[in-house]
Amino acid sequence: MPSYTAPTKDTQFILHDVLNISSLETPGYGDLEREFTGAILEEAGKISSEVLSPLNTVGDTQGCVMENGVVRTPEGFKAAFDQMAEGGWPGIDMPEEFGGMGLPYVMNTAVGEMFSAANMAFTMYQGLTHGAASAILAHGTDAQKETYLPKMVTCEWTGTMNLTEPHCGTDLGLMRTKAEPQDDGSYKITGQKIFISAGEHDMSDNIIHLVLGKITGGPEGIKGVSLFIVPKFLVNEDGSLGERNGVSCGKIEEKMGIHGNSTCVMNYDGATGYLLGEEHKGMRAMFTMMNEARLGVGMQGLAQTEVAYQNALEYAKDRLQGRAVTGAENPDGPADPLIVHPDIRRNLMEQKSFAEAGRAFLLWGSTLIDAAHRSQDKEADGLVSLLTPVIKGFLTDKGFDMTVQAQQVYGGHGYIEEWGMSQFARDARIAMIYEGANGVQALDLVGRKLAQDGGKHVMAFFDLVKSFCKDNAEIVGMEEFIAPLKAASKDLQAAGMYFMQEGMKNPNNALSGSNDFMHLFGHTCLGLMWGMMAKASLKALAEGTSDPEFHETKLATGRFYMTRTLPMTAVHLTRIQAGGDAVMALDAANF
Amino acid sequence: MPSYTAPTKDTQFILHDVLNISSLETPGYGDLEREFTGAILEEAGKISSEVLSPLNTVGDTQGCVMENGVVRTPEGFKAAFDQMAEGGWPGIDMPEEFGGMGLPYVMNTAVGEMFSAANMAFTMYQGLTHGAASAILAHGTDAQKETYLPKMVTCEWTGTMNLTEPHCGTDLGLMRTKAEPQDDGSYKITGQKIFISAGEHDMSDNIIHLVLGKITGGPEGIKGVSLFIVPKFLVNEDGSLGERNGVSCGKIEEKMGIHGNSTCVMNYDGATGYLLGEEHKGMRAMFTMMNEARLGVGMQGLAQTEVAYQNALEYAKDRLQGRAVTGAENPDGPADPLIVHPDIRRNLMEQKSFAEAGRAFLLWGSTLIDAAHRSQDKEADGLVSLLTPVIKGFLTDKGFDMTVQAQQVYGGHGYIEEWGMSQFARDARIAMIYEGANGVQALDLVGRKLAQDGGKHVMAFFDLVKSFCKDNAEIVGMEEFIAPLKAASKDLQAAGMYFMQEGMKNPNNALSGSNDFMHLFGHTCLGLMWGMMAKASLKALAEGTSDPEFHETKLATGRFYMTRTLPMTAVHLTRIQAGGDAVMALDAANF
Repeated sequence: MPSYTAPTKDTQFILHDVLNISSLETPGYGDLEREFTGAILEEAGKISSEVLSPLNTVGDTQGCVMENGVVRTPEGFKAAFDQMAEGGWPGIDMPEEFGGMGLPYVMNTAVGEMFSAANMAFTMYQGLTHGAASAILAHGTDAQKETYLPKMVTCEWTGTMNLTEPHCGTDLGLMRTKAEPQDDGSYKITGQKIFISAGEHDMSDNIIHLVLGKITGGPEGIKGVSLFIVPKFLVNEDGSLGERNGVSCGKIEEKMGIHGNSTCVMNYDGATGYLLGEEHKGMRAMFTMMNEARLGVGMQGLAQTEVAYQNALEYAKDRLQGRAVTGAENPDGPADPLIVHPDIRRNLMEQKSFAEAGRAFLLWGSTLIDAAHRSQDKEADGLVSLLTPVIKGFLTDKGFDMTVQAQQVYGGHGYIEEWGMSQFARDARIAMIYEGANGVQALDLVGRKLAQDGGKHVMAFFDLVKSFCKDNAEIVGMEEFIAPLKAASKDLQAAGMYFMQEGMKNPNNALSGSNDFMHLFGHTCLGLMWGMMAKASLKALAEGTSDPEFHETKLATGRFYMTRTLPMTAVHLTRIQAGGDAVMALDAANF
Repeated sequence: MPSYTAPTKDTQFILHDVLNISSLETPGYGDLEREFTGAILEEAGKISSEVLSPLNTVGDTQGCVMENGVVRTPEGFKAAFDQMAEGGWPGIDMPEEFGGMGLPYVMNTAVGEMFSAANMAFTMYQGLTHGAASAILAHGTDAQKETYLPKMVTCEWTGTMNLTEPHCGTDLGLMRTKAEPQDDGSYKITGQKIFISAGEHDMSDNIIHLVLGKITGGPEGIKGVSLFIVPKFLVNEDGSLGERNGVSCGKIEEKMGIHGNSTCVMNYDGATGYLLGEEHKGMRAMFTMMNEARLGVGMQGLAQTEVAYQNALEYAKDRLQGRAVTGAENPDGPADPLIVHPDIRRNLMEQKSFAEAGRAFLLWGSTLIDAAHRSQDKEADGLVSLLTPVIKGFLTDKGFDMTVQAQQVYGGHGYIEEWGMSQFARDARIAMIYEGANGVQALDLVGRKLAQDGGKHVMAFFDLVKSFCKDNAEIVGMEEFIAPLKAASKDLQAAGMYFMQEGMKNPNNALSGSNDFMHLFGHTCLGLMWGMMAKASLKALAEGTSDPEFHETKLATGRFYMTRTLPMTAVHLTRIQAGGDAVMALDAANF
């Protein structure tokens, strides 16, 4: 069975040595001293390894089962869910007035990676509740907040997001779910939603569905979509649970992975719903929390990489097979461990160098979200909006690739379910799809974010890279990081320039390169992260750190990324500059 | 449910317009006229679509079940297996004297792609029998051939290959299975083999296991390994089945995919075995057919791409979602089909351009195998030996990637099992692992094949590319193919040069780049295939073909590969030239 050890030391390094969070001006950050965050991460790591990780295989094997409309989660899930709630984990960044800990979002990300790595399917119940609660927090009336939040912050009640319908996923304007206004101000919701994660289960007393639908008589298309709160059990005035609402689970889907999370068809038959936010402004309300939600999915890609990497590494150290080409390294044994072989190392280094920079990227992005929300920092908000599709799309695409590579280290043992490596890959696969498929992320990036506010945010990103390179050029040891980062950034700028010039003539020239641009951007961001991490490690070494091995390893891992992975930016640029002609050449009938 | 249509027209184009097989001098090729191969492909396509494809989901869902030592295959598998045998498909390239059709191997590849695409797990029963029969054909005594081949050629009896043991996969020198010589010339085989595909099942009357083991008292390690025929039921002198041999299936594995094929733990408890070939020359005997076996696995990668692509394409044409950025293309409908979107096209074009060139690569490789076997052409043999790890490793790595991309077209529908796209990806995944994991293929390529016979074969490949470029430089329309092919070939040569110079100093410099080299080589080969296909299509157009659309489409697809995919060679070269330092920097303890 696979195991998981939380990367506490690495997270602490990023939070404190790289991002210096406790010295940032964002309200609440002053409390995030090294010891304080260390204590939180230790606890989160412990529950991840000891409680969540052992349930990961159980969840995959047993899956969720539906009988007579009741969905049963895998053995041990409910007890673990209660234990998480007791520890206050679901509400770590929720306001204290509703029972949360009131910590910044960056801490939610730091511990969320651990929970997701240990058990992705399980953690989704909590994550979706967090998303729904955040939407109520942002758009609910005081009464709605008081009714739902105290229960949702503790996960006594869980939440869901209902967007997709059988005939529409990305294009929500085609939605058919209807909301009929009632005299008491409520609505009767009727329609069918599909792919609803955690739509029905036995982990909580009530499930608060957030449902997108169209108020009868409202505008056509996406402009007529509103958001509704539809509880599974109606809530009495005193807060107790009332009668069952007209919402039910039609079936649960058989999926490639995340078997421990129930993916439901939800049927709304005149269910009572309450408007959340304004009429016809449902998309806006649903997407207020989009940056967090998408960052959370990017985190899942990274988390699966981390846990898959950890297990692949252990296997590579244990499994004796073949001899090192430069001479036996385990001469007394029947063979050398796999890790002596260059291609196994190449594989592991790709995983490691991606995981560590991906973690930094997620935590840095989270500090930007905190700055946007806690300090109303508009520049941070603009920058993180630009980076969000990169975080989501790039980290999940590469995250999946890396779990597949980790699986490969096991040879045939990676393909059988017994070792757990298949599950990491199967679970990671969904992250490329939900919360906006990665093609949609790339479209959002190139079609919308790039030019947002006159291109101000992408210019800010370039300035940031430029300043970083300039400010740190003199530090001995940084040249190995700065030169490749400059080259990558140059490729990214050239791609942006191409889109400006050629995209104007024909938007297909830009959109044909959207996927490549998202990856080009992602690599450049991880290159920047490696630059920042290298700087921190060089500083620690110069100051005579007590842990030189950690920092030497960090530098060596970064050098691998800069020399072996970052050069991908060149080919992405080449493809982008090839334009749309080859992509759009065929008539649909001739494919 | 997914469907499959055999790419008969494309296969015919490659066989006749590109490779001109009936004009090749290889014995047996003269009969392969266009009409003749067309008739065979039509029939193979029909049984693939109508019989095998509908059983693919059944196989995945039901899997194989073991009860009391008996393994039951999915519903309908046995009947389909008999139908395949009636059609003579299992023996298409087997000698007529043993009941085969005696056709060249290239025809086995052409129809094998169809069978594999329609139902990979099912086709493996037949493929493994073919492999075992080929080994008996090459190394068996006349008596052994007479006893086993007539039954195996028809799949009345099936075959298996037993290499892996719990503690050794790649490193077979560690093998523990013992063979004790008996007075009657037979051996008692004792040991455990794992991951034995089709090891036990209910499709045939007998199962002929080919088992690697060590004769007691023989040399240590890989030099003491011999190959044995171990039938499930002993065969009486008159050819009838005798008593049950001491071999049994211990369990069947739960796997990520190919559920319709039983993957068995096989226990040999003093089972009677017969030496196949010479004592202690088991590896040689087992690997005589290695080029075919590995090409067959490369084919599986390609086959899964083809079927996944076909279904993704249909979905992209059917599913209405969003509007074309350049204006509605389906103005009367609620939305445009997915295929209008540039990133969907980019995705589909990557699949299509890979599938078509991959097919050409496999068929070309198969003609080389035929030339080697039927004409004792040593140059063809050397060239295909060099290309085999590329065919296996590159086509299965990319084949898997392409099935994942096809799955992505479906959004959430790609992740649930109902649509069948998950199965294509899960099935394709194994091809990267078995028959030598792809890391081993890369090692074989760089560590062994590249320098074989003084580097003669790789030089022959470069000459072939060079001649092709030179001979066709004047053809109008070829410049778009020849320039990029030259660039790719130059990158490949530079990588080879780097290995020669730096690999001599430290082999880690070469082996750290082995995976990149395999991919660099693969892209160059597909670039060559596109060059050859473009030439054929330009010729057809110049001659006033009756099907200009087919050839225009072919050219457009090729241009996509040349401008969008082939540039990957540059980044592979960069990585290779980065050397081994970054890869080997860390002590195992510091990972």
